[in-house]
Amino acid sequence: MSRSTTRPGSEFGLHRVAEPAGVLPQAAWRLDPSPAIWPDEVRIRVDRLNLDAASFRQLRESAGGDPGAIRAAVATIIASRGKMHNPVTGSGGMLTGIVEEAGAGSPLGLRPGDRVATLVSLSLTPLAVTDGLARWDGRSEQVPCDGHAILFGRSIAAVLPADLPVPLALAVLDVCGAPALTHRVVSEAARRRAGPVVAVLGAAGKSGALSAAAARRAGAGRIIGVVPDKHEAAALRAAAVACGARGLADEVVIADARDPVALAAAVRTAGGPADITIVCVDVGGCEAGAILATAQGGTVIFFSMATSFTAAALGAEGVAADVTMLVGNGYVPGHAEFALDLIRAEPSVKNLLENRIGERAGGSQRADGSQRTGGSRPPGGDGDGRG
Amino acid sequence: MSRSTTRPGSEFGLHRVAEPAGVLPQAAWRLDPSPAIWPDEVRIRVDRLNLDAASFRQLRESAGGDPGAIRAAVATIIASRGKMHNPVTGSGGMLTGIVEEAGAGSPLGLRPGDRVATLVSLSLTPLAVTDGLARWDGRSEQVPCDGHAILFGRSIAAVLPADLPVPLALAVLDVCGAPALTHRVVSEAARRRAGPVVAVLGAAGKSGALSAAAARRAGAGRIIGVVPDKHEAAALRAAAVACGARGLADEVVIADARDPVALAAAVRTAGGPADITIVCVDVGGCEAGAILATAQGGTVIFFSMATSFTAAALGAEGVAADVTMLVGNGYVPGHAEFALDLIRAEPSVKNLLENRIGERAGGSQRADGSQRTGGSRPPGGDGDGRG
Repeated sequence: MSRSTTRPGSEFGLHRVAEPAGVLPQAAWRLDPSPAIWPDEVRIRVDRLNLDAASFRQLRESAGGDPGAIRAAVATIIASRGKMHNPVTGSGGMLTGIVEEAGAGSPLGLRPGDRVATLVSLSLTPLAVTDGLARWDGRSEQVPCDGHAILFGRSIAAVLPADLPVPLALAVLDVCGAPALTHRVVSEAARRRAGPVVAVLGAAGKSGALSAAAARRAGAGRIIGVVPDKHEAAALRAAAVACGARGLADEVVIADARDPVALAAAVRTAGGPADITIVCVDVGGCEAGAILATAQGGTVIFFSMATSFTAAALGAEGVAADVTMLVGNGYVPGHAEFALDLIRAEPSVKNLLENRIGERAGGSQRADGSQRTGGSRPPGGDGDGRG
Repeated sequence: MSRSTTRPGSEFGLHRVAEPAGVLPQAAWRLDPSPAIWPDEVRIRVDRLNLDAASFRQLRESAGGDPGAIRAAVATIIASRGKMHNPVTGSGGMLTGIVEEAGAGSPLGLRPGDRVATLVSLSLTPLAVTDGLARWDGRSEQVPCDGHAILFGRSIAAVLPADLPVPLALAVLDVCGAPALTHRVVSEAARRRAGPVVAVLGAAGKSGALSAAAARRAGAGRIIGVVPDKHEAAALRAAAVACGARGLADEVVIADARDPVALAAAVRTAGGPADITIVCVDVGGCEAGAILATAQGGTVIFFSMATSFTAAALGAEGVAADVTMLVGNGYVPGHAEFALDLIRAEPSVKNLLENRIGERAGGSQRADGSQRTGGSRPPGGDGDGRG
């Protein structure tokens, strides 16, 4: 099923763009997911989609929580766009599967039979589903399915490690850009001044916990973990205890990250303002709080896909905040290996993530019995997956 | 008309938020623009609004170009929100006026009678208009009007310089964060490696031209100015000639910044990829192009208010681009003075901006006679004002 020639721009998948012409696959309305591959492509037999949290939340709220309607909405998006690209949130997620065919010119180093996870967004990955999502109950971001997907020359995929459970590895790979970029930024700050203060908004979530661990490794002096409620505070503190005297966070504070003045006060009380603030929450409206919690001359890294560019730019300007604001790029060379190594070396993070995965698998119940409906709860850190 | 006490959070204007409660003024739906000031506030007698380009463009397109409908829309926004905060674009603009009353506790150093321009967005500035915008023809972003506005303790305003024409000073102050941040970023890059390559998208616009001049002063090796058409290329080249052997840009290339592959190729041909790419265009969809035009390990600064956070984050990840992406913060300490000094020292930039202002005043005609309707033209750099 391999085609005979490449086309210009094929490393980015331009030849798969059906409409509008000339844009990159991520910006396209519709991709061509035909199974026949070009020489630098790879075809994956897909067994699972992992929708990004912002997308699943929007789909659930838009469907009034009806699982059947959610399933129908996802199937419709994939069929009409040739990719799982939520038109409202602009985000996607990731997938897992088995390499079925690798073109002779593919630079990805994958071989038929490799079990892989994609590290580029579903929003730019050609995808066709053949089972109508019949095995998915519509109740979580994890979508078992049958179909195929296409990787380009510049796509990124990781072979799943043999020593870690697949759900854990997936959870880590989904957000692996965050700890890698955090490590880079905190390392640079620590070279200028020893022991910078780092605040992590959504520290009990996947990317938050991994980022906190990465910040520690990079030389952070004080790590302030911000969580929305007692439940997440307990989870984060338990991780700290499991890890010994110095846990994931030196201080755990409960605050609503959408309330800028309260958040800034809470971070200040815990030893802030922060030299570096890392935004790993799963809802919008946290830009101003992150800015106010950060010292003049400091840095904010926005990993949340719910971040508003204008709210960040105008918010900083509006309060005369001299802060460097980074768009959290999901790609840093070596990010997958770095994140998997963190999990192997830090039992506290591993425990925290495994508990989160278990909670979800167990019907998404909180310890206190409240359903995680998400509609009006304060921003937690569990939904920080990439789009 | 001064009130007797301050309230918590008043430096950010929290006490002026009418709904919803608890958010900062920029995030508020409605502000209270009452003329009585609190002790740390300043009241300005407003004589002119300068709508940001993205906002005016949206208003014009939404009104089908009808000036009366545009005027009514702006009046309605101000009356209903207590600020000129375009609900679609999320942006605002700036204003000029005379200081009418300064509270005893105001830290801004302003005195009654000072002629000032605000450097914080209209999207967070309490504003009331009393003349129904009767003097505005609805045809340009410059809105003559009568009314008052309120500045908070953390607001920023610049006293207009006596040695520069007001329209020129306003044009410069509107975008003064861009050259200041560009100077900082290029200086840091030049310390690591001499003569970094800088690409400026929208180099013939206000923020683009100022950023190019700032990049040169910061030690840029080669400056590639990207413009959408021959008209802007001629304007940029003329500025270079006026400036002597080394102009604003070393290379002027014509490319549509929304076409990522074409843009990257054009920048490469002109001596790229860029170590630093500065996005000063006035339309969306340029994120992928900016990323592809930038070298691995390089930096993109997004000053355009039309930037999409998710398009930038997922775009970089989607092509495995290890680029640092900065949200263009409109505030850098000393930004107003730096930009005004650039204008005084660089006749090329001054000429270019004065020509742009003259063009606008002359009915917004291009040299080739085509009207700047903006709807489908390639992204230029003229509309890069802050929100």
